[in-house]
Amino acid sequence: MRVVFLLTVPIVEMCFDPQDLRRLSEHETLFSSASTADRLADFWSRHGASADLLVTGWKTPPLTDAMLDMAPKLGGILHAAGSTRHLLPPSVWSRGLRIASARESLAVGVAETTLGLIIAGLKGFFPAARHVREGGWLIDADRVQGHKIREMYQSTIGLIGLSKTARHLLRLLKQFEVKVLATDPYVKADEVERLGATKVELDELMASSDVVSLHAPALPETRHMLGRSQFSLMRDGAIFVNTARGMIVDEDALSAELRTGRIWALLDVTDPEPPARDHPFRTLPNVVLLPHIAGAVGTGCRRLGRSTVDQILEFAAGLPMHGEISAQEWTILA
Amino acid sequence: MRVVFLLTVPIVEMCFDPQDLRRLSEHETLFSSASTADRLADFWSRHGASADLLVTGWKTPPLTDAMLDMAPKLGGILHAAGSTRHLLPPSVWSRGLRIASARESLAVGVAETTLGLIIAGLKGFFPAARHVREGGWLIDADRVQGHKIREMYQSTIGLIGLSKTARHLLRLLKQFEVKVLATDPYVKADEVERLGATKVELDELMASSDVVSLHAPALPETRHMLGRSQFSLMRDGAIFVNTARGMIVDEDALSAELRTGRIWALLDVTDPEPPARDHPFRTLPNVVLLPHIAGAVGTGCRRLGRSTVDQILEFAAGLPMHGEISAQEWTILA
Repeated sequence: MRVVFLLTVPIVEMCFDPQDLRRLSEHETLFSSASTADRLADFWSRHGASADLLVTGWKTPPLTDAMLDMAPKLGGILHAAGSTRHLLPPSVWSRGLRIASARESLAVGVAETTLGLIIAGLKGFFPAARHVREGGWLIDADRVQGHKIREMYQSTIGLIGLSKTARHLLRLLKQFEVKVLATDPYVKADEVERLGATKVELDELMASSDVVSLHAPALPETRHMLGRSQFSLMRDGAIFVNTARGMIVDEDALSAELRTGRIWALLDVTDPEPPARDHPFRTLPNVVLLPHIAGAVGTGCRRLGRSTVDQILEFAAGLPMHGEISAQEWTILA
Repeated sequence: MRVVFLLTVPIVEMCFDPQDLRRLSEHETLFSSASTADRLADFWSRHGASADLLVTGWKTPPLTDAMLDMAPKLGGILHAAGSTRHLLPPSVWSRGLRIASARESLAVGVAETTLGLIIAGLKGFFPAARHVREGGWLIDADRVQGHKIREMYQSTIGLIGLSKTARHLLRLLKQFEVKVLATDPYVKADEVERLGATKVELDELMASSDVVSLHAPALPETRHMLGRSQFSLMRDGAIFVNTARGMIVDEDALSAELRTGRIWALLDVTDPEPPARDHPFRTLPNVVLLPHIAGAVGTGCRRLGRSTVDQILEFAAGLPMHGEISAQEWTILA
């Protein structure tokens, strides 16, 4: 089997542990020596004709029908990253290509970060650390800089969207004594129950959660799904966490709610990115904004590479790839 | 059975959910109306004589032999908090009293906070948030303000001391792909293995861990157990987490190592507390100092109350209390 990696050298080095690549020794693997994306299309024009499997990733340019026409033997496209929406022409489905991504592996890292943000949010790591830096110590038993310090115990966590990230987060949350609510139009109540949560409508979730964590896909239908009316339902002192995408949130509405001081936000994403230098999320005292580091930064990229190698071996063995995406599923994935 | 709560009203209200207290309805429970500790001894002199079980907690004054002499029926002392060392006269053991604490319940909250600090530390929540607040965004792929952003994946976590907190942290860490090292003079290698870690010597742990987390008890023998020679062994970019006690650390040695910028520290405790207003831990850029909030703040206190009620019912049923402490164990507990 011949696998063509349409990835730049820096992406290969960042994502693939040499130990993992050695597991591919029984197959023919072709890597480009391109260090920038613009030379990848040229590499494909030379090697696409013989490719059985195409591996794409960050910086791979969008695939065109012309590029796929060059590859008569191609059986599948494996994306060593998350979102495939921008990458694939819709014809992939009529061509009978098998499509997979490493989104599940990415989701693990994002879920771990989200758990860290939930603990940090409830405990008030950020206001507490700021308070100490300003010369204070804990005076009031459980309140610091307007934040009520809490533990996970008996907290209610609301998950908007049961993405792969949300599902891994649910696995992690099983170790904690929390109540989990979830809303997702595509998942039935009994399946939500099996995952460890209770299915509710969005408004009830917003109104009943100590922490609201966003895990919906970025699609035209989800744009500004959370606006003034949703944020205004949140409890006093509740925490909004976004490790998904900025465009799902009406940022003006969130900023307005945050300005009241009533709620807190821990955000890893904005729309657009980077946010303007004077964006209120950068300066409001009840916002923690991270620069899009929830998933696949540092060692997390290596997990993604391992998942990709696992899937290449699954493909080679004629098995379903564990990150395989059906045509139907693709319509609701970002 | 008569249970005397030698607790102030604010402590009872903070720690006991009314729902939990209702589970004691079959027993006679006596609560003081004292709102300060100085009136508790007086309450005991009136009710100690009839007590079968004594519940103590934060703010309960140290028990004296004279106080125990007043209570001929007393069968046990249940401490609704962690450390019992300051509370009990050594005669409790010769009196045949059963002793228990809610340390396991406290440990859960501390372990959860520690996990949050480990994720925050590896991911660089604090330098990343500061960087964004100062107008930046992620430029370098995995480095922010001198901190290398990492995930849990393939990290090595070193636990110093296999306390209840460390053991619960080990349970939580099972959900992550990490390697765990541990050192504890009182736990054999095969038991460490069963808990999910590898037993090593302290020096090896310091030198091999991406995160070193302290979970040793505060005892005369552990004072300044971590000093210059231990901290100098830590890897460049490694993270030191202390949610145990400040006195175990030689703070001058840690400050000196931190000043080199080589390592990071996320600390919840100092010695003494609060630290001086000009303490370097308050101002060094590679230190996050929290005001002793890792355990039993906010809702965490309610878990402690639930554990206490569970143990009262165990005692009443003639069962071992789940937080019972043996005379031998007491010698190595804080």
